[in-house]
Amino acid sequence: MSLLDRIKVCNNGMDVAAYAPFIVEGQRLGWVHSDFASALKPFEDVFLESDNAVTLRDGFNDYRSRSDAVLPVLRSLDADGWFSGWRDEAYPVGTGFYDEAFLEMERTAVPRFGVPAFGVHVNGFVRDGDDLLMWIARRADDKPTYPGMLDNMVAGGQPVGLGLLENVIKEAAEEAAVPAEIAGKAIPVGAISYQHEEDNCLKPDTMFVFDMELPKDFVPTNTDGELSGFKLLPVREVMAITADSAEFKFNCAAVNIDFFIRHGILTPEDPDYITLQRGLHQ
Amino acid sequence: MSLLDRIKVCNNGMDVAAYAPFIVEGQRLGWVHSDFASALKPFEDVFLESDNAVTLRDGFNDYRSRSDAVLPVLRSLDADGWFSGWRDEAYPVGTGFYDEAFLEMERTAVPRFGVPAFGVHVNGFVRDGDDLLMWIARRADDKPTYPGMLDNMVAGGQPVGLGLLENVIKEAAEEAAVPAEIAGKAIPVGAISYQHEEDNCLKPDTMFVFDMELPKDFVPTNTDGELSGFKLLPVREVMAITADSAEFKFNCAAVNIDFFIRHGILTPEDPDYITLQRGLHQ
Repeated sequence: MSLLDRIKVCNNGMDVAAYAPFIVEGQRLGWVHSDFASALKPFEDVFLESDNAVTLRDGFNDYRSRSDAVLPVLRSLDADGWFSGWRDEAYPVGTGFYDEAFLEMERTAVPRFGVPAFGVHVNGFVRDGDDLLMWIARRADDKPTYPGMLDNMVAGGQPVGLGLLENVIKEAAEEAAVPAEIAGKAIPVGAISYQHEEDNCLKPDTMFVFDMELPKDFVPTNTDGELSGFKLLPVREVMAITADSAEFKFNCAAVNIDFFIRHGILTPEDPDYITLQRGLHQ
Repeated sequence: MSLLDRIKVCNNGMDVAAYAPFIVEGQRLGWVHSDFASALKPFEDVFLESDNAVTLRDGFNDYRSRSDAVLPVLRSLDADGWFSGWRDEAYPVGTGFYDEAFLEMERTAVPRFGVPAFGVHVNGFVRDGDDLLMWIARRADDKPTYPGMLDNMVAGGQPVGLGLLENVIKEAAEEAAVPAEIAGKAIPVGAISYQHEEDNCLKPDTMFVFDMELPKDFVPTNTDGELSGFKLLPVREVMAITADSAEFKFNCAAVNIDFFIRHGILTPEDPDYITLQRGLHQ
């Protein structure tokens, strides 16, 4: 097991041969597995299947009408068990973070359509002289996705209508009871992109990464029930856990690796140094 | 003009159609332009041209014999004006930084063979409260490559037989009179890779990047004549120069952009944020 294995898991979905393009207004926004394409067949007033593509039908001419047309289909598919927990959280769906979205879609449905999703991941850390310590979180055992796995101190998907730093402040409060004065000083330090495949879903996702330095005496407390607890560990111990186990949720391992590189913990002596960094920006 | 333009210049050599593979022991190590391939024709006891490839002939069975066979050819080509200044500095030539080199080659010849080269680039910076200032250098007007252009405070190619941090310490002393106690604390913060084309040469190069924090009262002095001077500028001013002019040597602009991102100066509000980071790891 190695850090490179973690990055390979993040990018295990680069081959899209098993997927059909998902097209809206003539543009490919995502990738749909044939299983899920079959499940969409009964909803032919909304989705058209032809030429090995799934297309949102013409006639829904704006963001609102497209979103409204798709919503009842998603509700019905959710009732049939196609998703892993309805959140009542709308995600924008488009070609990229900086392009105008074509529609919005309930969060839990996004991976089924293989459209790009975005999130914020926050490295909460403490300085002790020259040493760094990281706060790491464990996901609650009843969380619908990746229950019980290790996670970054604060992380969350990027919903419609919230700025990135606003989202950091909101998630830091909910997940770890971090005061807004501290979370608001989190520094954006880069973006990590990958294309992950899991359970016949493609995730071509991007994480906006923030470093949040915490006072030595701050102790996080979860307030929303999504985490079961936190641990403050020396950064080298977090590196060992990341390399030697698969305990971290796959994309949180990538956020850790980026942290180790940026802070000089993982050094160019590691023969995977260059390959790892390419893997963080697919 | 924009930061994205700078990254595009770094990666302007991704199309290798005009180049023939350079092969040693059955492995492609680089790319040779047809002009230079013609110049190699008279040296057919060392280089074989066939099947649109340039191959180091069999019979040179180890690092030393390959290096010794190539050296007189390079001397002769240098006398004919094919290179831009003989340095008497051997570069390792192989498939990558972490793989055993097949031979060594005078530094100035490396771009003609399109083999991967490696270097260290050091961001020298000063903290003033919450503000960051960067030391930037100007290359001497008589430097054989990129004379008069702006540069990172300290940078240098990675020759045979020197560790990366050793090279940082050596270059920091030569280029900026930085004491070893300070340079030795430079932190490795990542690697930047690009494939640049210029004057019928391909450069598939990697820069190992270091952040070196300097005391406020330290003033760099060049000792080797390769730089004409230094300036300490607020980081936002360095960002404006990098974006608005082509004054920085192309790859130093990429090192700046990486610095701006890692330190939260360039933020996710920039619509090129994700694209820029992909461009830093080609």
